[in-house]
Amino acid sequence: MKDLSFRKPFEVREMIRRGEMQKPTSGMCRGYAQGNLVTLPKNLAYDFLLFTQRNPKPCPVLEVTDEGCKELRVIAPGSDITTDIPKYRVYRKGELQGEYTDIKSFWREDFVSFILGCSFTFESAMIDEGIEVRHIRNGSNVPMYITNVECNPAGIFSGPTVVSMRPIPLEKIVKTVQITSRYPGVHGAPIHIGNSDCIGIRDISKPDFGDPVEIKENEIPVFWACGVTPQAVAMRVKPEIMITHAPGNMFITDIRNNELAVI
Amino acid sequence: MKDLSFRKPFEVREMIRRGEMQKPTSGMCRGYAQGNLVTLPKNLAYDFLLFTQRNPKPCPVLEVTDEGCKELRVIAPGSDITTDIPKYRVYRKGELQGEYTDIKSFWREDFVSFILGCSFTFESAMIDEGIEVRHIRNGSNVPMYITNVECNPAGIFSGPTVVSMRPIPLEKIVKTVQITSRYPGVHGAPIHIGNSDCIGIRDISKPDFGDPVEIKENEIPVFWACGVTPQAVAMRVKPEIMITHAPGNMFITDIRNNELAVI
Repeated sequence: MKDLSFRKPFEVREMIRRGEMQKPTSGMCRGYAQGNLVTLPKNLAYDFLLFTQRNPKPCPVLEVTDEGCKELRVIAPGSDITTDIPKYRVYRKGELQGEYTDIKSFWREDFVSFILGCSFTFESAMIDEGIEVRHIRNGSNVPMYITNVECNPAGIFSGPTVVSMRPIPLEKIVKTVQITSRYPGVHGAPIHIGNSDCIGIRDISKPDFGDPVEIKENEIPVFWACGVTPQAVAMRVKPEIMITHAPGNMFITDIRNNELAVI
Repeated sequence: MKDLSFRKPFEVREMIRRGEMQKPTSGMCRGYAQGNLVTLPKNLAYDFLLFTQRNPKPCPVLEVTDEGCKELRVIAPGSDITTDIPKYRVYRKGELQGEYTDIKSFWREDFVSFILGCSFTFESAMIDEGIEVRHIRNGSNVPMYITNVECNPAGIFSGPTVVSMRPIPLEKIVKTVQITSRYPGVHGAPIHIGNSDCIGIRDISKPDFGDPVEIKENEIPVFWACGVTPQAVAMRVKPEIMITHAPGNMFITDIRNNELAVI
Protein backbone atom coordinates (compact mmCIF):
# COMPACT_ATOMS: atom_id res chain seq x y z
CA MET A 1 0.00 0.00 0.00
CA LYS A 2 1.47 3.28 -1.11
CA ASP A 3 1.59 6.05 1.46
CA LEU A 4 -1.00 8.55 0.26
CA SER A 5 -0.77 10.89 3.22
CA PHE A 6 1.38 13.42 1.39
CA ARG A 7 -0.26 13.17 -2.05
CA LYS A 8 -2.32 15.99 -3.50
CA PRO A 9 -6.12 15.56 -3.48
CA PHE A 10 -6.42 15.59 -7.29
CA GLU A 11 -3.83 12.80 -7.57
CA VAL A 12 -5.68 10.56 -5.14
CA ARG A 13 -9.05 11.37 -6.74
CA GLU A 14 -7.59 10.29 -10.08
CA MET A 15 -6.25 7.05 -8.57
CA ILE A 16 -9.71 6.33 -7.18
CA ARG A 17 -11.25 7.20 -10.56
CA ARG A 18 -8.96 4.72 -12.33
CA GLY A 19 -9.87 2.03 -9.78
CA GLU A 20 -6.36 1.93 -8.29
CA MET A 21 -7.46 2.85 -4.77
CA GLN A 22 -10.54 1.34 -3.15
CA LYS A 23 -9.87 1.76 0.59
CA PRO A 24 -11.31 4.09 3.24
CA THR A 25 -9.74 7.53 2.84
CA SER A 26 -8.75 8.22 6.45
CA GLY A 27 -5.20 9.61 6.64
CA MET A 28 -4.93 10.39 2.92
CA CYS A 29 -3.87 13.83 1.65
CA ARG A 30 -2.89 15.15 5.03
CA GLY A 31 -4.00 18.74 5.61
CA TYR A 32 -6.95 18.58 3.21
CA ALA A 33 -10.62 18.33 4.15
CA GLN A 34 -12.69 15.32 3.18
CA GLY A 35 -16.45 15.27 2.78
CA ASN A 36 -19.63 13.21 3.02
CA LEU A 37 -21.74 12.78 -0.13
CA VAL A 38 -25.49 13.05 -0.61
CA THR A 39 -26.80 12.89 -4.19
CA LEU A 40 -30.52 13.35 -4.83
CA PRO A 41 -32.88 14.22 -7.68
CA LYS A 42 -33.53 17.96 -8.06
CA ASN A 43 -37.16 17.59 -6.95
CA LEU A 44 -35.89 16.62 -3.47
CA ALA A 45 -33.02 19.10 -3.38
CA TYR A 46 -34.90 22.07 -1.91
CA ASP A 47 -36.15 20.04 1.02
CA PHE A 48 -32.70 18.60 1.59
CA LEU A 49 -30.94 21.97 1.34
CA LEU A 50 -33.44 23.36 3.86
CA PHE A 51 -32.76 20.30 6.03
CA THR A 52 -29.04 21.13 6.03
CA GLN A 53 -29.80 24.76 6.90
CA ARG A 54 -31.90 23.62 9.86
CA ASN A 55 -29.38 20.97 10.95
CA PRO A 56 -25.95 22.51 10.45
CA LYS A 57 -24.22 20.30 13.01
CA PRO A 58 -24.85 16.93 11.30
CA CYS A 59 -25.09 18.53 7.83
CA PRO A 60 -22.52 21.33 7.36
CA VAL A 61 -22.57 22.03 3.62
CA LEU A 62 -19.25 22.58 1.85
CA GLU A 63 -20.69 22.73 -1.69
CA VAL A 64 -23.86 22.00 -3.64
CA THR A 65 -23.52 21.26 -7.35
CA ASP A 66 -25.70 22.68 -10.07
CA GLU A 67 -28.31 20.24 -11.40
CA GLY A 68 -26.72 17.52 -13.53
CA CYS A 69 -23.17 18.73 -12.80
CA LYS A 70 -20.69 16.01 -11.79
CA GLU A 71 -17.89 18.40 -10.82
CA LEU A 72 -17.45 20.05 -7.45
CA ARG A 73 -16.32 23.28 -9.07
CA VAL A 74 -15.35 25.18 -5.94
CA ILE A 75 -13.94 22.61 -3.55
CA ALA A 76 -12.48 20.18 -6.13
CA PRO A 77 -12.04 21.55 -9.66
CA GLY A 78 -11.68 18.75 -12.20
CA SER A 79 -13.38 16.20 -9.95
CA ASP A 80 -16.06 13.73 -11.03
CA ILE A 81 -18.56 12.84 -8.31
CA THR A 82 -19.57 9.64 -10.12
CA THR A 83 -16.11 8.08 -9.83
CA ASP A 84 -13.93 9.87 -7.27
CA ILE A 85 -15.11 8.15 -4.08
CA PRO A 86 -13.80 4.65 -3.32
CA LYS A 87 -17.16 3.23 -2.30
CA TYR A 88 -20.73 4.50 -2.72
CA ARG A 89 -24.06 3.41 -1.29
CA VAL A 90 -27.29 3.54 -3.25
CA TYR A 91 -30.50 3.76 -1.23
CA ARG A 92 -33.83 3.19 -2.98
CA LYS A 93 -36.97 3.94 -1.00
CA GLY A 94 -34.89 3.74 2.17
CA GLU A 95 -33.40 0.34 1.42
CA LEU A 96 -29.68 -0.07 0.86
CA GLN A 97 -29.60 -1.47 -2.66
CA GLY A 98 -25.86 -2.04 -2.60
CA GLU A 99 -22.34 -0.64 -2.46
CA TYR A 100 -20.56 0.34 -5.66
CA THR A 101 -17.12 1.60 -6.63
CA ASP A 102 -18.65 4.10 -9.05
CA ILE A 103 -22.13 5.43 -9.78
CA LYS A 104 -21.79 6.03 -13.51
CA SER A 105 -24.61 3.62 -14.34
CA PHE A 106 -26.94 5.31 -11.83
CA TRP A 107 -26.30 8.87 -12.99
CA ARG A 108 -29.21 11.09 -13.98
CA GLU A 109 -29.21 14.58 -15.44
CA ASP A 110 -31.51 15.78 -12.66
CA PHE A 111 -29.11 14.82 -9.85
CA VAL A 112 -27.81 17.41 -7.38
CA SER A 113 -24.88 16.54 -5.11
CA PHE A 114 -24.15 17.86 -1.65
CA ILE A 115 -20.75 17.56 -0.01
CA LEU A 116 -20.94 17.85 3.78
CA GLY A 117 -17.93 18.49 6.02
CA CYS A 118 -16.32 15.50 7.74
CA SER A 119 -14.80 15.07 11.18
CA PHE A 120 -11.39 14.09 9.78
CA THR A 121 -10.58 17.83 9.81
CA PHE A 122 -11.07 18.30 13.53
CA GLU A 123 -9.47 14.92 14.31
CA SER A 124 -6.36 16.17 12.60
CA ALA A 125 -6.48 19.33 14.75
CA MET A 126 -6.94 17.19 17.89
CA ILE A 127 -3.91 15.06 17.03
CA ASP A 128 -1.87 18.22 16.41
CA GLU A 129 -2.70 19.24 19.99
CA GLY A 130 -1.64 15.89 21.43
CA ILE A 131 -5.09 14.37 21.91
CA GLU A 132 -5.20 10.72 20.90
CA VAL A 133 -8.01 9.74 18.54
CA ARG A 134 -8.64 6.12 19.46
CA HIS A 135 -10.03 4.72 16.19
CA ILE A 136 -7.20 6.32 14.21
CA ARG A 137 -4.65 4.73 16.53
CA ASN A 138 -6.51 1.40 16.07
CA GLY A 139 -6.66 1.81 12.30
CA SER A 140 -10.42 1.27 12.44
CA ASN A 141 -13.49 3.28 11.41
CA VAL A 142 -14.97 5.72 13.94
CA PRO A 143 -17.89 4.25 15.94
CA MET A 144 -21.22 5.84 14.97
CA TYR A 145 -24.62 5.57 16.70
CA ILE A 146 -28.20 6.39 15.78
CA THR A 147 -29.47 8.55 18.67
CA ASN A 148 -32.88 9.62 19.95
CA VAL A 149 -32.02 13.26 19.16
CA GLU A 150 -34.40 14.20 16.37
CA CYS A 151 -33.17 16.47 13.59
CA ASN A 152 -35.25 19.55 12.81
CA PRO A 153 -37.53 18.40 9.98
CA ALA A 154 -37.65 20.16 6.60
CA GLY A 155 -40.13 19.21 3.90
CA ILE A 156 -40.10 15.44 3.48
CA PHE A 157 -36.90 15.02 5.48
CA SER A 158 -36.80 14.02 9.14
CA GLY A 159 -34.92 11.51 11.19
CA PRO A 160 -32.55 10.87 14.05
CA THR A 161 -29.16 12.50 14.48
CA VAL A 162 -26.29 10.07 13.97
CA VAL A 163 -23.25 10.76 16.16
CA SER A 164 -19.64 9.70 16.08
CA MET A 165 -17.93 8.93 19.39
CA ARG A 166 -14.36 9.44 20.60
CA PRO A 167 -13.25 8.54 24.14
CA ILE A 168 -11.39 11.49 25.66
CA PRO A 169 -9.38 11.59 28.91
CA LEU A 170 -11.07 13.79 31.50
CA GLU A 171 -8.23 16.29 31.60
CA LYS A 172 -8.49 16.86 27.85
CA ILE A 173 -12.25 17.44 27.55
CA VAL A 174 -12.01 21.23 27.73
CA LYS A 175 -9.29 21.39 25.09
CA THR A 176 -11.26 19.00 22.89
CA VAL A 177 -14.33 21.26 23.03
CA GLN A 178 -12.21 24.32 22.28
CA ILE A 179 -10.46 22.77 19.30
CA THR A 180 -13.54 21.31 17.65
CA SER A 181 -15.58 24.48 18.23
CA ARG A 182 -13.28 26.23 15.77
CA TYR A 183 -14.59 23.99 12.97
CA PRO A 184 -18.37 24.43 12.59
CA GLY A 185 -17.99 23.51 8.90
CA VAL A 186 -17.04 19.96 9.89
CA HIS A 187 -19.61 19.33 12.68
CA GLY A 188 -17.99 21.68 15.21
CA ALA A 189 -18.33 21.27 18.97
CA PRO A 190 -19.62 18.00 20.49
CA ILE A 191 -23.38 17.69 20.91
CA HIS A 192 -23.09 15.51 24.01
CA ILE A 193 -20.45 14.57 26.58
CA GLY A 194 -20.71 11.67 28.95
CA ASN A 195 -23.76 9.51 29.55
CA SER A 196 -24.70 7.82 26.31
CA ASP A 197 -28.11 6.73 27.68
CA CYS A 198 -29.22 10.37 27.56
CA ILE A 199 -29.10 10.36 23.78
CA GLY A 200 -30.63 6.94 23.39
CA ILE A 201 -27.56 4.78 22.86
CA ARG A 202 -28.32 1.39 24.41
CA ASP A 203 -24.99 -0.35 24.07
CA ILE A 204 -21.91 1.73 23.40
CA SER A 205 -19.94 -1.39 22.51
CA LYS A 206 -22.23 -1.97 19.50
CA PRO A 207 -22.11 0.99 17.12
CA ASP A 208 -24.71 1.20 14.32
CA PHE A 209 -21.95 2.07 11.83
CA GLY A 210 -18.16 1.73 12.05
CA ASP A 211 -16.17 -0.21 14.65
CA PRO A 212 -16.29 -0.22 18.47
CA VAL A 213 -13.40 1.28 20.47
CA GLU A 214 -12.28 0.78 24.04
CA ILE A 215 -13.19 3.45 26.61
CA LYS A 216 -10.48 3.49 29.27
CA GLU A 217 -11.04 4.16 32.96
CA ASN A 218 -10.04 7.83 32.98
CA GLU A 219 -11.97 8.57 29.79
CA ILE A 220 -15.52 9.55 28.97
CA PRO A 221 -17.25 9.23 25.60
CA VAL A 222 -17.67 12.46 23.64
CA PHE A 223 -20.23 12.61 20.83
CA TRP A 224 -20.28 14.72 17.68
CA ALA A 225 -23.03 15.08 15.07
CA CYS A 226 -22.08 12.95 12.08
CA GLY A 227 -22.37 13.22 8.31
CA VAL A 228 -23.90 9.74 8.15
CA THR A 229 -27.12 11.34 9.49
CA PRO A 230 -28.59 11.68 5.95
CA GLN A 231 -28.36 7.89 5.58
CA ALA A 232 -30.45 7.39 8.73
CA VAL A 233 -32.84 10.02 7.35
CA ALA A 234 -33.07 8.14 4.04
CA MET A 235 -33.95 4.94 5.92
CA ARG A 236 -36.74 6.83 7.73
CA VAL A 237 -38.30 8.87 4.93
CA LYS A 238 -37.60 6.51 2.02
CA PRO A 239 -36.91 8.93 -0.83
CA GLU A 240 -37.10 7.43 -4.32
CA ILE A 241 -33.29 7.43 -4.53
CA MET A 242 -30.38 8.79 -2.48
CA ILE A 243 -26.75 8.05 -3.22
CA THR A 244 -24.13 8.54 -0.51
CA HIS A 245 -20.54 7.62 0.22
CA ALA A 246 -20.01 4.40 2.18
CA PRO A 247 -18.98 5.30 5.76
CA GLY A 248 -15.25 6.06 5.91
CA ASN A 249 -14.95 6.31 2.13
CA MET A 250 -14.99 10.04 1.71
CA PHE A 251 -14.68 12.62 -1.07
CA ILE A 252 -11.25 14.28 -0.82
CA THR A 253 -11.46 18.03 -1.45
CA ASP A 254 -8.89 20.68 -2.34
CA ILE A 255 -9.87 22.74 0.72
CA ARG A 256 -7.21 22.92 3.38
CA ASN A 257 -8.35 22.05 6.89
CA ASN A 258 -7.07 25.41 8.06
CA GLU A 259 -9.45 27.23 5.72
CA LEU A 260 -12.33 25.71 7.67
CA ALA A 261 -11.26 27.16 11.02
CA VAL A 262 -13.56 30.06 11.86
CA ILE A 263 -11.00 31.93 13.93
CA MET B 1 -40.04 58.39 21.97
CA LYS B 2 -40.05 55.58 24.50
CA ASP B 3 -36.72 53.93 25.23
CA LEU B 4 -37.05 50.49 23.67
CA SER B 5 -33.49 49.37 24.33
CA PHE B 6 -34.43 47.22 27.31
CA ARG B 7 -37.73 45.86 26.01
CA LYS B 8 -38.18 42.23 25.05
CA PRO B 9 -38.27 41.42 21.34
CA PHE B 10 -41.86 40.11 21.40
CA GLU B 11 -43.04 43.35 23.03
CA VAL B 12 -41.47 45.53 20.36
CA ARG B 13 -42.67 43.21 17.57
CA GLU B 14 -46.19 43.63 18.95
CA MET B 15 -45.83 47.42 19.08
CA ILE B 16 -44.70 47.38 15.46
CA ARG B 17 -47.61 45.08 14.56
CA ARG B 18 -50.09 47.49 16.16
CA GLY B 19 -48.56 50.39 14.23
CA GLU B 20 -47.21 52.07 17.37
CA MET B 21 -43.57 51.97 16.26
CA GLN B 22 -42.49 52.84 12.75
CA LYS B 23 -38.82 53.82 13.15
CA PRO B 24 -35.56 52.09 12.26
CA THR B 25 -34.84 49.40 14.84
CA SER B 26 -31.19 50.20 15.66
CA GLY B 27 -30.61 50.15 19.42
CA MET B 28 -33.88 48.41 20.27
CA CYS B 29 -33.99 45.26 22.46
CA ARG B 30 -30.37 45.43 23.45
CA GLY B 31 -28.65 42.05 23.45
CA TYR B 32 -30.95 40.50 20.85
CA ALA B 33 -30.09 39.85 17.21
CA GLN B 34 -31.96 41.58 14.40
CA GLY B 35 -32.33 40.29 10.87
CA ASN B 36 -32.74 41.19 7.19
CA LEU B 37 -35.84 39.93 5.37
CA VAL B 38 -36.17 38.34 1.95
CA THR B 39 -39.60 36.96 0.99
CA LEU B 40 -40.01 35.16 -2.33
CA PRO B 41 -42.40 32.73 -4.03
CA LYS B 42 -41.55 29.06 -3.46
CA ASN B 43 -40.59 28.57 -7.11
CA LEU B 44 -37.62 30.93 -6.54
CA ALA B 45 -36.77 29.66 -3.06
CA TYR B 46 -34.40 26.86 -4.07
CA ASP B 47 -32.26 29.16 -6.16
CA PHE B 48 -32.21 31.73 -3.39
CA LEU B 49 -31.39 29.20 -0.66
CA LEU B 50 -28.55 27.93 -2.83
CA PHE B 51 -27.47 31.55 -3.33
CA THR B 52 -27.24 32.01 0.44
CA GLN B 53 -25.23 28.77 0.75
CA ARG B 54 -22.79 30.04 -1.86
CA ASN B 55 -22.63 33.55 -0.39
CA PRO B 56 -22.64 33.11 3.37
CA LYS B 57 -20.95 36.45 4.09
CA PRO B 58 -23.63 38.72 2.62
CA CYS B 59 -26.41 36.16 3.21
CA PRO B 60 -25.98 34.32 6.54
CA VAL B 61 -29.30 32.54 7.07
CA LEU B 62 -30.84 32.56 10.56
CA GLU B 63 -34.11 30.88 9.56
CA VAL B 64 -36.16 29.91 6.53
CA THR B 65 -39.94 29.54 6.98
CA ASP B 66 -42.02 26.73 5.60
CA GLU B 67 -44.03 27.66 2.50
CA GLY B 68 -46.93 29.98 3.38
CA CYS B 69 -45.90 30.25 7.03
CA LYS B 70 -45.84 33.79 8.46
CA GLU B 71 -44.19 32.86 11.74
CA LEU B 72 -40.46 32.54 12.36
CA ARG B 73 -40.97 29.53 14.58
CA VAL B 74 -37.41 29.09 15.78
CA ILE B 75 -35.98 32.58 16.10
CA ALA B 76 -39.22 34.43 16.97
CA PRO B 77 -42.13 32.26 18.15
CA GLY B 78 -45.42 34.12 17.87
CA SER B 79 -44.11 36.54 15.26
CA ASP B 80 -45.89 37.56 12.06
CA ILE B 81 -43.59 38.38 9.18
CA THR B 82 -46.32 40.36 7.40
CA THR B 83 -46.58 42.97 10.17
CA ASP B 84 -43.60 42.83 12.54
CA ILE B 85 -41.13 44.98 10.60
CA PRO B 86 -41.55 48.78 10.69
CA LYS B 87 -41.01 49.29 6.97
CA TYR B 88 -40.96 46.87 4.02
CA ARG B 89 -39.91 47.21 0.41
CA VAL B 90 -41.72 45.47 -2.42
CA TYR B 91 -39.69 44.86 -5.60
CA ARG B 92 -41.50 43.76 -8.76
CA LYS B 93 -39.35 42.70 -11.69
CA GLY B 94 -36.43 44.51 -10.09
CA GLU B 95 -38.26 47.81 -9.64
CA LEU B 96 -38.96 49.18 -6.18
CA GLN B 97 -42.75 49.39 -6.23
CA GLY B 98 -42.89 51.12 -2.85
CA GLU B 99 -42.36 51.04 0.88
CA TYR B 100 -45.10 49.76 3.19
CA THR B 101 -45.64 49.42 6.92
CA ASP B 102 -47.11 45.95 6.47
CA ILE B 103 -47.32 43.42 3.65
CA LYS B 104 -50.68 41.85 4.51
CA SER B 105 -52.20 42.83 1.17
CA PHE B 106 -49.25 41.35 -0.76
CA TRP B 107 -49.20 38.02 1.06
CA ARG B 108 -49.42 34.78 -0.93
CA GLU B 109 -49.68 31.22 0.29
CA ASP B 110 -46.64 30.26 -1.79
CA PHE B 111 -44.31 32.74 -0.07
CA VAL B 112 -41.15 31.60 1.72
CA SER B 113 -39.31 34.02 4.02
CA PHE B 114 -35.61 34.14 4.78
CA ILE B 115 -34.18 36.01 7.77
CA LEU B 116 -30.50 36.85 7.31
CA GLY B 117 -28.21 37.95 10.14
CA CYS B 118 -27.55 41.67 10.59
CA SER B 119 -24.45 43.59 11.58
CA PHE B 120 -26.12 45.13 14.63
CA THR B 121 -24.90 42.05 16.56
CA PHE B 122 -21.22 42.61 15.88
CA GLU B 123 -21.58 46.39 16.29
CA SER B 124 -22.83 45.75 19.77
CA ALA B 125 -19.77 43.54 20.43
CA MET B 126 -17.48 46.27 19.04
CA ILE B 127 -19.00 48.88 21.33
CA ASP B 128 -18.60 46.53 24.30
CA GLU B 129 -14.87 46.44 23.46
CA GLY B 130 -14.60 50.23 23.32
CA ILE B 131 -14.60 50.62 19.54
CA GLU B 132 -16.72 53.56 18.41
CA VAL B 133 -19.25 52.81 15.67
CA ARG B 134 -19.54 56.14 13.88
CA HIS B 135 -23.07 55.94 12.45
CA ILE B 136 -24.46 54.81 15.81
CA ARG B 137 -22.79 57.76 17.51
CA ASN B 138 -24.28 60.00 14.78
CA GLY B 139 -27.72 58.43 15.14
CA SER B 140 -27.72 57.77 11.37
CA ASN B 141 -28.04 54.67 9.20
CA VAL B 142 -24.84 52.76 8.29
CA PRO B 143 -23.39 53.77 4.87
CA MET B 144 -23.77 50.97 2.31
CA TYR B 145 -22.20 50.65 -1.14
CA ILE B 146 -22.77 48.48 -4.20
CA THR B 147 -19.32 47.03 -5.03
CA ASN B 148 -17.74 45.37 -8.05
CA VAL B 149 -17.33 42.14 -6.03
CA GLU B 150 -19.64 39.66 -7.75
CA CYS B 151 -21.54 37.18 -5.63
CA ASN B 152 -21.28 33.50 -6.56
CA PRO B 153 -24.28 32.93 -8.82
CA ALA B 154 -26.93 30.28 -8.05
CA GLY B 155 -29.76 29.49 -10.45
CA ILE B 156 -31.37 32.76 -11.53
CA PHE B 157 -29.65 34.79 -8.82
CA SER B 158 -26.51 36.83 -9.38
CA GLY B 159 -25.40 40.33 -8.57
CA PRO B 160 -22.92 42.54 -6.79
CA THR B 161 -22.02 42.30 -3.12
CA VAL B 162 -23.30 45.25 -1.11
CA VAL B 163 -21.04 46.28 1.78
CA SER B 164 -21.50 48.36 4.89
CA MET B 165 -18.62 50.61 5.96
CA ARG B 166 -17.35 51.67 9.36
CA PRO B 167 -14.29 53.93 9.80
CA ILE B 168 -11.92 52.35 12.34
CA PRO B 169 -8.82 53.91 13.96
CA LEU B 170 -5.63 52.19 12.78
CA GLU B 171 -4.76 50.89 16.22
CA LYS B 172 -8.14 49.14 16.51
CA ILE B 173 -8.21 47.32 13.15
CA VAL B 174 -6.82 44.06 14.54
CA LYS B 175 -9.29 43.97 17.41
CA THR B 176 -12.13 44.80 15.00
CA VAL B 177 -11.24 41.83 12.79
CA GLN B 178 -10.99 39.55 15.80
CA ILE B 179 -14.33 40.57 17.27
CA THR B 180 -16.32 40.40 14.07
CA SER B 181 -14.75 37.07 13.05
CA ARG B 182 -16.53 35.48 15.99
CA TYR B 183 -19.89 36.21 14.34
CA PRO B 184 -20.08 34.48 10.94
CA GLY B 185 -23.87 34.30 11.37
CA VAL B 186 -24.08 38.09 11.08
CA HIS B 187 -21.62 38.69 8.19
CA GLY B 188 -18.48 37.87 10.21
CA ALA B 189 -15.05 39.30 9.40
CA PRO B 190 -14.64 42.27 7.03
CA ILE B 191 -14.32 41.49 3.33
CA HIS B 192 -12.09 44.48 2.65
CA ILE B 193 -9.97 46.96 4.61
CA GLY B 194 -8.65 50.21 3.26
CA ASN B 195 -8.75 51.36 -0.36
CA SER B 196 -12.37 51.56 -1.46
CA ASP B 197 -11.37 51.88 -5.15
CA CYS B 198 -10.31 48.21 -5.07
CA ILE B 199 -13.90 47.09 -4.61
CA GLY B 200 -15.36 49.56 -7.08
CA ILE B 201 -16.58 52.31 -4.78
CA ARG B 202 -16.21 55.58 -6.68
CA ASP B 203 -17.12 58.11 -4.03
CA ILE B 204 -17.11 57.03 -0.41
CA SER B 205 -18.97 60.18 0.58
CA LYS B 206 -21.98 59.04 -1.48
CA PRO B 207 -23.29 55.69 -0.24
CA ASP B 208 -25.85 53.81 -2.34
CA PHE B 209 -27.97 53.16 0.76
CA GLY B 210 -27.90 54.76 4.23
CA ASP B 211 -26.07 57.92 5.27
CA PRO B 212 -22.46 59.07 4.79
CA VAL B 213 -20.10 59.25 7.79
CA GLU B 214 -16.88 61.18 8.36
CA ILE B 215 -13.58 59.26 8.08
CA LYS B 216 -11.07 60.93 10.39
CA GLU B 217 -7.37 61.28 9.73
CA ASN B 218 -6.17 58.32 11.79
CA GLU B 219 -8.94 56.06 10.50
CA ILE B 220 -9.39 53.78 7.52
CA PRO B 221 -12.65 52.48 6.10
CA VAL B 222 -13.47 48.83 6.87
CA PHE B 223 -16.06 47.02 4.77
CA TRP B 224 -18.36 44.12 5.67
CA ALA B 225 -20.69 42.14 3.42
CA CYS B 226 -24.22 43.44 3.95
CA GLY B 227 -27.70 41.94 4.12
CA VAL B 228 -28.95 44.51 1.61
CA THR B 229 -27.14 42.46 -1.07
CA PRO B 230 -30.36 40.60 -2.02
CA GLN B 231 -31.94 43.95 -2.94
CA ALA B 232 -29.09 44.68 -5.36
CA VAL B 233 -29.53 41.15 -6.69
CA ALA B 234 -33.27 41.75 -7.18
CA MET B 235 -32.50 44.90 -9.17
CA ARG B 236 -30.16 42.86 -11.39
CA VAL B 237 -32.14 39.67 -12.00
CA LYS B 238 -35.65 41.12 -11.79
CA PRO B 239 -37.58 38.30 -10.11
CA GLU B 240 -41.36 38.49 -10.43
CA ILE B 241 -41.61 39.65 -6.80
CA MET B 242 -39.26 40.00 -3.82
CA ILE B 243 -40.23 41.60 -0.53
CA THR B 244 -37.53 42.85 1.84
CA HIS B 245 -37.17 45.04 4.90
CA ALA B 246 -36.37 48.71 4.22
CA PRO B 247 -32.70 49.34 5.14
CA GLY B 248 -32.34 49.90 8.89
CA ASN B 249 -35.85 48.61 9.59
CA MET B 250 -35.05 45.11 10.74
CA PHE B 251 -36.85 42.06 12.09
CA ILE B 252 -36.10 41.74 15.83
CA THR B 253 -35.49 38.11 16.84
CA ASP B 254 -35.51 36.29 20.18
CA ILE B 255 -31.93 35.08 19.59
CA ARG B 256 -29.38 36.58 21.92
CA ASN B 257 -26.33 38.08 20.23
CA ASN B 258 -24.15 35.84 22.37
CA GLU B 259 -25.76 32.73 20.89
CA LEU B 260 -24.36 33.77 17.51
CA ALA B 261 -20.73 33.84 18.66
CA VAL B 262 -18.99 30.77 17.30
CA ILE B 263 -16.43 30.55 20.06
